Amino acid sequence: MSAPTTPDLLALDRAAQDLLFRAARTANTFTDEPVTDAQVAAIHDLIRYGPTALNGQPLRVLLLRSAAARARLLPYVSSGNRAKTASAPLTAILAADVDFHLRLPELFPHRPQARDWLTDRAVRAEQARFNAALQIGYLLVGVRAAGLAAGPMTGFDAAAVNREFFPDGRHQTLLLMNVGRPGPDAWRERPPRLSTSEVVRTL
Amino acid sequence: MSAPTTPDLLALDRAAQDLLFRAARTANTFTDEPVTDAQVAAIHDLIRYGPTALNGQPLRVLLLRSAAARARLLPYVSSGNRAKTASAPLTAILAADVDFHLRLPELFPHRPQARDWLTDRAVRAEQARFNAALQIGYLLVGVRAAGLAAGPMTGFDAAAVNREFFPDGRHQTLLLMNVGRPGPDAWRERPPRLSTSEVVRTL
Repeated sequence: MSAPTTPDLLALDRAAQDLLFRAARTANTFTDEPVTDAQVAAIHDLIRYGPTALNGQPLRVLLLRSAAARARLLPYVSSGNRAKTASAPLTAILAADVDFHLRLPELFPHRPQARDWLTDRAVRAEQARFNAALQIGYLLVGVRAAGLAAGPMTGFDAAAVNREFFPDGRHQTLLLMNVGRPGPDAWRERPPRLSTSEVVRTL
Repeated sequence: MSAPTTPDLLALDRAAQDLLFRAARTANTFTDEPVTDAQVAAIHDLIRYGPTALNGQPLRVLLLRSAAARARLLPYVSSGNRAKTASAPLTAILAADVDFHLRLPELFPHRPQARDWLTDRAVRAEQARFNAALQIGYLLVGVRAAGLAAGPMTGFDAAAVNREFFPDGRHQTLLLMNVGRPGPDAWRERPPRLSTSEVVRTL
């Protein structure tokens, strides 16, 4: 009898492993098929259970669906990202709410005083950005769990996007993400991944 | 015929939704059952396919398994996190490699010059931290995909942990994560999650 192969050491079945990670790819083209509000709600209802520090849940999602909304974003997207962002059925602006702590008395009832640990805005912004990034990791998995392709993009002017879409200064944009069904020639060859021995050390 | 319920709008089956998000919880106690190197490799082999900007993959994982290694960490962990960190079969120090860009000519062959866009260390550290946080999101899902419980913790002295475990200054610790099978009374009541309408807006 041979040893179990790596995928079989996981409790998650092979089809789900493929859907979420092994066969999933970052899409650069999309079909016209809409992403519905019901799909968005289903994705969020799944990934909102992912943990964050103090249960603070700082991620906020602004979805651009209309042509008018899209037109406000495109000038701030790098030239290489513009065509796909214009043609994706949905583009999400993923931002951290720096004032997430205001909800902590309700969200972290074990320690209602946690809000008062976070009066320093710079400390809070760092926490908000880190935990929102964790949540973006969950969200990307959630988009794929819905059978959709995600197209995350860092090539954009974050300060300009913040001014355009979050003029009150409370939110900091971290990432843009196109969402939809992959279109023709949606991806290039997958670039190499680091091996476990290059990433993980044990003491 | 009634409309599909939210979980049924997803391509991921219900058992996998429960394993990864809905039924999964942050564990605060663990059994003695070891987490094997083969399990760690299986988790990493799954989540390494998650996307990062420029395919940079800045996350580095230092696993503490021996009593000697654990003893080096415990003084820098907040008192509320000490007992569970001492008793978990495995504790991971999750850090961003600020010099991840050195590997870009190999990791991002589409644009081998990408390494030279990142000569500013502060810009690079920000990118490393953000993308490593995304990867921690994937990793937490991967731990659960292995049928294990994760116990992420932000209550620790990051500067001291960096000095103790990464004296060359190249790595920045973002999170600690205990990993194992949940023990007795492993969690409290789940605190509330924000609703979709509180998190997602559409333009």
